[in-house]
Amino acid sequence: MEGLSMEPAVREAAQRARKAAGFLATASSTAKDGALVAMAQALESSASSILEANEEDVAVARSSGYPAAFVSRLTLSASKVRDMAGGIRALAALPDPVGRVLDVFERPNGLQIRKVSVPFGVVGVIYESRPNVTSDAASICLKSGSAAILKGGSESRLTNLAIVSALHRGLEHVGFPKDSVIYLDTAGRACVRAMLHARGHIDLLVPRGGSGLIKTVVEEASVPVLETGVGNCHIYVHCDADLDMATSIILNAKCQNPSVCNAVETVLVDRDVASRFLPAVCERLRHMGVEIRGCRETASNVPWVSPANDDDWGREYLSLTLAIKVVDDLEEATRHVARHGTGHSEAIVTQNGEAARRFQAEVDAACVYWNASTRFTDGMEFGFGGEIGISTQKLHARGPVGLREMVTFKYLVEGSGQVR
Amino acid sequence: MEGLSMEPAVREAAQRARKAAGFLATASSTAKDGALVAMAQALESSASSILEANEEDVAVARSSGYPAAFVSRLTLSASKVRDMAGGIRALAALPDPVGRVLDVFERPNGLQIRKVSVPFGVVGVIYESRPNVTSDAASICLKSGSAAILKGGSESRLTNLAIVSALHRGLEHVGFPKDSVIYLDTAGRACVRAMLHARGHIDLLVPRGGSGLIKTVVEEASVPVLETGVGNCHIYVHCDADLDMATSIILNAKCQNPSVCNAVETVLVDRDVASRFLPAVCERLRHMGVEIRGCRETASNVPWVSPANDDDWGREYLSLTLAIKVVDDLEEATRHVARHGTGHSEAIVTQNGEAARRFQAEVDAACVYWNASTRFTDGMEFGFGGEIGISTQKLHARGPVGLREMVTFKYLVEGSGQVR
Repeated sequence: MEGLSMEPAVREAAQRARKAAGFLATASSTAKDGALVAMAQALESSASSILEANEEDVAVARSSGYPAAFVSRLTLSASKVRDMAGGIRALAALPDPVGRVLDVFERPNGLQIRKVSVPFGVVGVIYESRPNVTSDAASICLKSGSAAILKGGSESRLTNLAIVSALHRGLEHVGFPKDSVIYLDTAGRACVRAMLHARGHIDLLVPRGGSGLIKTVVEEASVPVLETGVGNCHIYVHCDADLDMATSIILNAKCQNPSVCNAVETVLVDRDVASRFLPAVCERLRHMGVEIRGCRETASNVPWVSPANDDDWGREYLSLTLAIKVVDDLEEATRHVARHGTGHSEAIVTQNGEAARRFQAEVDAACVYWNASTRFTDGMEFGFGGEIGISTQKLHARGPVGLREMVTFKYLVEGSGQVR
Repeated sequence: MEGLSMEPAVREAAQRARKAAGFLATASSTAKDGALVAMAQALESSASSILEANEEDVAVARSSGYPAAFVSRLTLSASKVRDMAGGIRALAALPDPVGRVLDVFERPNGLQIRKVSVPFGVVGVIYESRPNVTSDAASICLKSGSAAILKGGSESRLTNLAIVSALHRGLEHVGFPKDSVIYLDTAGRACVRAMLHARGHIDLLVPRGGSGLIKTVVEEASVPVLETGVGNCHIYVHCDADLDMATSIILNAKCQNPSVCNAVETVLVDRDVASRFLPAVCERLRHMGVEIRGCRETASNVPWVSPANDDDWGREYLSLTLAIKVVDDLEEATRHVARHGTGHSEAIVTQNGEAARRFQAEVDAACVYWNASTRFTDGMEFGFGGEIGISTQKLHARGPVGLREMVTFKYLVEGSGQVR
């Protein structure tokens, strides 16, 4: 523990959270679901004060010259608040991830060992100015029996405080400690740094946001981190692909929501089908407003594309930009993915089962698709309910992180005096 | 990835390891088990050169004035080499942790999702001068399909090089890449630091050793870490305990091997039984050579014990020293454990099922025992076969880390052109 040198605001929050975590760890499923429903109701009944606070945040952000995409993520509406409440109710309806017996075994000496899922305890979430993360993260932590310490972007401060104040009313209504959800209302980097180093006080950190935030957290934190987010995703069009299917998958994976981590950033195309495939798909992409950066061979098939440089293969554009590269074969495709992928979501389009199985076996990523859009890497799409992010690390959780991943376990060992 | 600024020796080792990892990830169970058996044979047939190298290391350590316990951990014997080989053969006989189908589900849109266990890829192990870790870690990584980069204590350098050279002969004998096991033979902290920051090059770091080493790795590393080891373990003698059972459990947990992390460091005794229990148990402990540091009430029952100060409750003695504290009740006991425990192994001795269940529910540790010695927190004792350490963190693995924990997973998603 590094308690002595820690920022007082964080230490004090962690102590309060630890106490609430003790309550939550032994709360029944029914009680937690009741608290979630009360939180959802309180959010809805506080919609007008949340929206007022949000208007202030948005006005400041606008006048400070933040880009339109930023302001749009910051902006709430009545229907967005309803969606937040709906998300909490959906969580309440899911099975409790705590108390699952994951394994039971008896040893030859008679020891009975049960492996049981238990809460993490205190979970810290550091995020940018997307107010919906406040209610999503708070409710996922509560359902999984952990207290949450939330630190959101300063541009959404008033909105977050209004949301948390509503959640607190819900909690108090059913007799749950307010400290189940703590919002760290302290400006400055010292507070975030203290969270990163609060070993023994915070059990798990989840950064949610852009690659800069995630890099800082992952590189600085001594608290265990669930790394989420950065997706440089590829779709590989194999020589045996159904080219119509490939086209529809690429259009979907690039255009349906280009600003998210599971959108495709680079398409790899087998040389054998490049001249048949590229002109038509590029035309379709251009119609959707996509800027294409192509390798030399792509350009020789589609003269109007911009030339790609080596940096393009490593870019997570998060916009209507797509890199395209012609490859020799599956081996070059997997090599390219190994070099430039971020271990998020990768896809092959082919009618050839053997090629698909090889791609799925060799590509090292959280989700490896065969004939489907990379956009399905998502907690709801996987049927997990809400998610706290998409893990791109290999420790603990990989891919969509739902309730089942937001818990740890302990071994309960029962004996009759056994010694070694 | 931080490749550009990385120590060349580590970058080069990581590149070679990554290539070997590609081979290992798709190697069959039979092939891996064959490689393990060949490694075990090569170890045995190289016993004399390993022991010669070890003699040199031991001579230098002795003349440099290292403590006897250190020298004893460093020293190999013919039977210890046979044990190392036996450990590898035992691993070969265990089921393959790779390729297990952990979950299968179909989504309403027809997507078929399989969650399959896969290797981490490249695992770094940083350890002190216990040569058996070299063969243990190398073989556990190989069985779980990962390449290992090993960095052992400099005092065991010649021994480790001799062991790794034998393992390499075994690997080559069956056509496995030597780079499946890489020993980083580079002195100095720069090399360790480079491992700690080799994100994207090393997928998982496992520190094995004393609390100083573990603290450094956990605090500095940006690569995901599996924290192992530090155990400030408690045994709580509840008022309804069978006192003979409590005595035998305490003697075992303190004396059978006091230098290990699952040995008991503090005994908590309910006030109701203190005067009946303490004089006898302390006498037995004294006979075993145990120094006792007791709270004031312990001393009032057993006048000859040394007085404990507040530091004693936080100490992992790893020696024949034991702290004893009298407590009011179960609540004070769990509070003491919450404050001073390291989340490793905690035990209650009682005939009262309700008290036991409460203790097991409230104590936040990897293993919580009822009427058994804390010394059972061990991969072999749990029936996992070999272990790479005891995890005291909550992310990914908790308690004994065996083969099943030394893998990650990926989702294989099969569609027929699905888009969102």
